[in-house]
Amino acid sequence: MSIKQTQAWQKLSDMKKKLVKEPLSVGDGLQVKTDKIIFDYSRQLVNENVMAALMQLAEEAGLKSKIESMFCGQKINVTENRAVLHTALRNLSGGPVLVDGRDVMPEIKAVLQKIKGFSSRIHSGEIKGITGKPLKNIVAIGIGGSYLGPEYLAEACAPYTVSGMKLSFISNVDGTDFARKTASLDPETALFVIVSKTFTTAETMKNASTAKKWMISKLGADPNVIKKHFIAVSTAADKVKAFGIDPENMFGFWDFVGGRFSATSAVGGVPLSLYLGYDNFHKILEGANWMDVHYRTAPLSENIPVISALLDIWNINFMGFKTRAILPYSQAYSKYAPHCQQTEMESNGKSVLIDGTPVDFDTGEIVFGEPGTNGQHSFYQLIHQGTTPVPADFIGFLKPQYNVGQEDVITHHDELMTNFFAQPDALAFGQDSNDPHKKFSGKRPSNIFLLKEQDPFSAGLMLALLEHRVATKGFVWGLNSFDQFGVELGKKLGLDIRRRMELFKKDQKDPSVYAGLNNSTAKLLKLYLSGELYS
Amino acid sequence: MSIKQTQAWQKLSDMKKKLVKEPLSVGDGLQVKTDKIIFDYSRQLVNENVMAALMQLAEEAGLKSKIESMFCGQKINVTENRAVLHTALRNLSGGPVLVDGRDVMPEIKAVLQKIKGFSSRIHSGEIKGITGKPLKNIVAIGIGGSYLGPEYLAEACAPYTVSGMKLSFISNVDGTDFARKTASLDPETALFVIVSKTFTTAETMKNASTAKKWMISKLGADPNVIKKHFIAVSTAADKVKAFGIDPENMFGFWDFVGGRFSATSAVGGVPLSLYLGYDNFHKILEGANWMDVHYRTAPLSENIPVISALLDIWNINFMGFKTRAILPYSQAYSKYAPHCQQTEMESNGKSVLIDGTPVDFDTGEIVFGEPGTNGQHSFYQLIHQGTTPVPADFIGFLKPQYNVGQEDVITHHDELMTNFFAQPDALAFGQDSNDPHKKFSGKRPSNIFLLKEQDPFSAGLMLALLEHRVATKGFVWGLNSFDQFGVELGKKLGLDIRRRMELFKKDQKDPSVYAGLNNSTAKLLKLYLSGELYS
Repeated sequence: MSIKQTQAWQKLSDMKKKLVKEPLSVGDGLQVKTDKIIFDYSRQLVNENVMAALMQLAEEAGLKSKIESMFCGQKINVTENRAVLHTALRNLSGGPVLVDGRDVMPEIKAVLQKIKGFSSRIHSGEIKGITGKPLKNIVAIGIGGSYLGPEYLAEACAPYTVSGMKLSFISNVDGTDFARKTASLDPETALFVIVSKTFTTAETMKNASTAKKWMISKLGADPNVIKKHFIAVSTAADKVKAFGIDPENMFGFWDFVGGRFSATSAVGGVPLSLYLGYDNFHKILEGANWMDVHYRTAPLSENIPVISALLDIWNINFMGFKTRAILPYSQAYSKYAPHCQQTEMESNGKSVLIDGTPVDFDTGEIVFGEPGTNGQHSFYQLIHQGTTPVPADFIGFLKPQYNVGQEDVITHHDELMTNFFAQPDALAFGQDSNDPHKKFSGKRPSNIFLLKEQDPFSAGLMLALLEHRVATKGFVWGLNSFDQFGVELGKKLGLDIRRRMELFKKDQKDPSVYAGLNNSTAKLLKLYLSGELYS
Repeated sequence: MSIKQTQAWQKLSDMKKKLVKEPLSVGDGLQVKTDKIIFDYSRQLVNENVMAALMQLAEEAGLKSKIESMFCGQKINVTENRAVLHTALRNLSGGPVLVDGRDVMPEIKAVLQKIKGFSSRIHSGEIKGITGKPLKNIVAIGIGGSYLGPEYLAEACAPYTVSGMKLSFISNVDGTDFARKTASLDPETALFVIVSKTFTTAETMKNASTAKKWMISKLGADPNVIKKHFIAVSTAADKVKAFGIDPENMFGFWDFVGGRFSATSAVGGVPLSLYLGYDNFHKILEGANWMDVHYRTAPLSENIPVISALLDIWNINFMGFKTRAILPYSQAYSKYAPHCQQTEMESNGKSVLIDGTPVDFDTGEIVFGEPGTNGQHSFYQLIHQGTTPVPADFIGFLKPQYNVGQEDVITHHDELMTNFFAQPDALAFGQDSNDPHKKFSGKRPSNIFLLKEQDPFSAGLMLALLEHRVATKGFVWGLNSFDQFGVELGKKLGLDIRRRMELFKKDQKDPSVYAGLNNSTAKLLKLYLSGELYS
């Protein structure tokens, strides 16, 4: 049954019709306080009746039991017949978690121990490069889920780096990414981490193979060059070995960890433990686990991921707002929005229910964002005065990450936070004016998330908040948020173009190079292969 | 009169009702070919009748004469009583351009000469730092329009750098930005470029003042430290001098150059000439001028900015698609989407016509994007299978920027371009399947822009294409795309919060600190000022 058939959905539709005409009142009660994060949603276009109906919607959708099924390891990713257990990765003091009758916690802990041991031996200098130099330049090669989450965490936690360690990411198959990231890289101190579950991801394997050639060209063809300067995060032991990596230096994960939910597995664990130290990675896990426990145990009406997800549903399905802006007032969180973009849009950008029925309502929203105050000088004009309201998430911190200009009466962080406090009210309440160009309609909804520090714990907490908000929307809508078949067709057509390129390179006159393509693609491909803008 | 009252608008509404049910046919003729760029729009949900009606809409809006008014220096930014003449900045072989009867071209050329002279004296070592070292580390401090355009151009043209020169940007008032960018900066070789038209932009002046203190702490309080290590791009000579900068080292621009259109003024010219050399900056100007000439002279039906803008209008106002994805298949163009986001959303995120009448149709779309293939592993799932169609711009290049793996049959660039050619067809034609999870609806519109090289000329061309596409939409809709009053209210409320913070810092018990704030803001501000998550 579509969620649209529930009583709650009907109630919400009726309420929406009435509510849009009422002025916004900032509700005192619309706040969740914990000792780690405050979530204030008093500027959403809701009242207590709407909130009650949203809670009813969650109940009619069976949300509580779906959450529990996820945590318990049931195979809720039905299209791929997999459990969804990124929460187990950080449930280190919890009990057993069974998948097909097997407790996965010992395996999870064993991989963590291996990461801890390996990274500490790198930091101590026990493990060295082939010329005897310490391995200080970590280069993680991965794309999508093997890249965006770890990158967000690395940026957010950069001041916590182990002294001297550097971390960079190569993701794009565009050679520019490889060329620029290796331009001033010292091969003797470089450690490449190849991150690909199957060790077949096209972009990653292309970059890995180029990295291998590059290292051989710099340090010689001795197999130990690869053995000592490459490690893998993968589940494909044979392919890892065939590449030349010591199977001892492969860090595993499991099919119950999806790419975009894998930042707290070895996918994030290996590069982040090398960069920040294992203890800081462990603090990321603690922060994520704190949010996991909150999500699993807090009543729905005091549950931050649940409320924020239900408000998204209200905004998307009832208010008709199909985009959302993510606005961390934190330069350290500059890569949070791109990671959210992936997690939200890849999970819930779907048109069928979990059983394959086409949806009859809108699903996942388009999310985008930049750190404040930068965004204020860019796209906020539209958020304040455009014709398409964009619900916004403001994320702020009580403390700065660096003490810059702390001797000033108004510090850099104060200046930042004046904006953080001002913008949600400007959006909510607007301003009348005799000059129509200076009128602000107000009634533009936003959330405020306020945390203490920009530390690894908070970074992990915000990661898990995102994951659970996404999952909640999928649970209520009745989607499978954990597959991503929408990326398959492009891959398939890409392989077809690749085959045509190979044909061309064998025989430029082979007529089958362009056979069956539409005229537009055929012409453009011809231009590309001939290397001229005109054919 | 609202553009909605035109015959063409009514025609387009009628056509839309019929068109959505027809299958997409990739039209051979829907392409503009030039010797610098090919624009293929055959995958838009249009036919020749729609295109004809869009051209009629442009005519009924008086587009041609509005374009001409802009180029001629008429004060089309009526709310601020300013001309809009970023095109004059690169019209170096053209005739006079009059503003208030004064030819501005000599002033423009004089600033360019000054930039050329200054940057060449830096590169030759004639101008040195206070300790006699060459100034190789350029740090541009600016935000919004003083940052995003130059950053896009710097990233796009990075391989063209003058040997040894480095360029970084500090924009965010969050001290993290300053701290990280200066962490390994050598003060003796640093040259700060302070970019602010009025020299009052809060973020920029805060960062500039912190930079000044930082330099004094490193190199001493000698006024020559500031004189030799700081220059300005500004129009506020008095304030620049008061800061301690030699007025000789101030590079001017004019009120006819708006922030987000200023990348080809001294705003971009100074940092980019220092980084890339003046000759490469000049090539950026040439590329922009090429597009300016095309925009001003090509018939509307062969005019790339005009057609792309009219298709945006079709998608926004008739198809109801209020977002657009910008997808350069180029890692070098990784900062193009953020610059587009600013230029589009700040210009056309408006709710009133140029005369102050409220609009009765949707205006500027939400734009976002990441380079391909990275985006494919992130948000493309929604673009392929979500419920909200997202028109997409694919931007590709015939040649790679770096020769990486050119010995392979399928090079990095080939691999990238297989995706570039495959994705638009996957979106347009979709795929049927017995498995509903693997169905692709198709009929998802996209544009293809294909250029030769990722060089300064192309970067300038793509900059101007963006500027003119944005202006065209404003001209047709009847907006003023050149003001931005939507950013004022947030600033005003920010100053109010700032005043409260100052009160608190004088007397923590002053009751007026929180007086008049709503409960939510009062509570959150109290938490911030008390430094505790709980009050």
